[in-house]
Amino acid sequence: MEVRLARKRGFCFGVEDAIELAERTLRENEPGRVVALGPVIHNPQVVERLERAGLNQSGDLDHLSAGTTVLIRSHGAGPDTYKQAEEKQLSIVDATCVLVKRAQTVVRQLHEEGYRVVMIGDANHPEVRGVIGYAPDVIVVDSEDSLDEVLPSRGKLGIVAQTTHAPEHVAQMIGEIAKRPFRELRVVNTLCLEVVRRQEAAVELAGEVDVMFVLGGRHSANTQELARMCRDAGVPTYHLETWADFRPEMARGKKVAGVTAGASTPDFAIDEFVTNLKCFNSDSE
Amino acid sequence: MEVRLARKRGFCFGVEDAIELAERTLRENEPGRVVALGPVIHNPQVVERLERAGLNQSGDLDHLSAGTTVLIRSHGAGPDTYKQAEEKQLSIVDATCVLVKRAQTVVRQLHEEGYRVVMIGDANHPEVRGVIGYAPDVIVVDSEDSLDEVLPSRGKLGIVAQTTHAPEHVAQMIGEIAKRPFRELRVVNTLCLEVVRRQEAAVELAGEVDVMFVLGGRHSANTQELARMCRDAGVPTYHLETWADFRPEMARGKKVAGVTAGASTPDFAIDEFVTNLKCFNSDSE
Repeated sequence: MEVRLARKRGFCFGVEDAIELAERTLRENEPGRVVALGPVIHNPQVVERLERAGLNQSGDLDHLSAGTTVLIRSHGAGPDTYKQAEEKQLSIVDATCVLVKRAQTVVRQLHEEGYRVVMIGDANHPEVRGVIGYAPDVIVVDSEDSLDEVLPSRGKLGIVAQTTHAPEHVAQMIGEIAKRPFRELRVVNTLCLEVVRRQEAAVELAGEVDVMFVLGGRHSANTQELARMCRDAGVPTYHLETWADFRPEMARGKKVAGVTAGASTPDFAIDEFVTNLKCFNSDSE
Repeated sequence: MEVRLARKRGFCFGVEDAIELAERTLRENEPGRVVALGPVIHNPQVVERLERAGLNQSGDLDHLSAGTTVLIRSHGAGPDTYKQAEEKQLSIVDATCVLVKRAQTVVRQLHEEGYRVVMIGDANHPEVRGVIGYAPDVIVVDSEDSLDEVLPSRGKLGIVAQTTHAPEHVAQMIGEIAKRPFRELRVVNTLCLEVVRRQEAAVELAGEVDVMFVLGGRHSANTQELARMCRDAGVPTYHLETWADFRPEMARGKKVAGVTAGASTPDFAIDEFVTNLKCFNSDSE
């Protein structure tokens, strides 16, 4: 079948940098002495490759011995993690995405300038869990449902968003927050332009094809968002991790398929998928 | 017929202060030596009373001679007016509403702190015309239509609103502005709580009555807004200046009438209207 690729897709520079740093750290250290706090990026295939190269994974620092190298993943970590690592004399290699790092700095500055910080994001996402550590009592919101309960009345609010969120969603939340009584709102744009460009390209492509395939880790927030936006554009959409998830009924009877991929999806996974899909005969099967 | 009054209505402290200051200034000066730059408040009946007490009106300062007392009205004036008055050795009496004064200060500060100022308001309203004089190149917007053309791309925007605007409208505009690419948005709430309370009380009352009468000057923005909100609440609504504008068909067949009034409507006008409306027999006429 005919396959078209989104003009912007897959790896962003933050993810590329994180993987490169992880690989270099593994080469420079003894096997088994490098530990990542959770998956370096939200892509199981890439994480598996790093594990084969000797990377260990841990949920926390408690059981690590002095001298171990700790890799902070692209989603970043809160200040407590850095402090604890220092106390335990661990060696830190920081693969935090520069934009996440900036969001952390912005949160700290907003707090220092007297704003109560509000983060528009998914409270369970590792980026958000890390960023909110840089100011006390950060309010995390992701829908308008509970705004009346969680927002202080007539407050001076400093607002940031999870870097991978869609601008439309963030704008809608800002409009909702502005409906409540406030003294001042200061919104610093922390959105990743790479993610925004992938979203724009995906929606553009979705308008030209009969079915969309969005490749990326199940837990990748930016991949989920890409899939949601393609669905909202009115085209049947499937969020798959690799070609192994493909089922013939997904493409049967379709003429043209569109393919895009989240920011943590490596080129080899996209190439493999596209090559296989091109060979798939959607008419006969 | 039964008449119910909105629990918050009519004169706000800014208007009260402006009239008091105008009256005191007229008492303290020789007849004909006090000139107001435009109507002191947006209520013809009050303005007429002040004119009878000796207040002159002028559109500009050009033809005034040294020593004349110039009354800056509640809507305020731009810095050029103050400068010109000083140059012409006029004596200034400033009746600018304290909240408008604050909006002027906020606009100047936002500009000094590097923000491009955006004012959500009616470009023809005297308050807006004055406030935008306190920073260069202020962008005035009041609907989403032209936002794409007038907003700088990825700008650092400082946002204020006309003090008499409705919070819902302002929140909607903020949400629209946030949809465009921006670097930072800093929204300082310049809305008048007195106006907001009158709006809330009007909408509450509109839900209980068969017809609403909103009293206030034709050119009073906050009165127009009150009337719009009552209409949006689904009740037949009439914006009248005084009882002279009342026509029997407005109330015919209605059992209960609600009455509210804009922030520049004096109590005597409300009292007169309510007294007459109570005597009106809506069944028989």
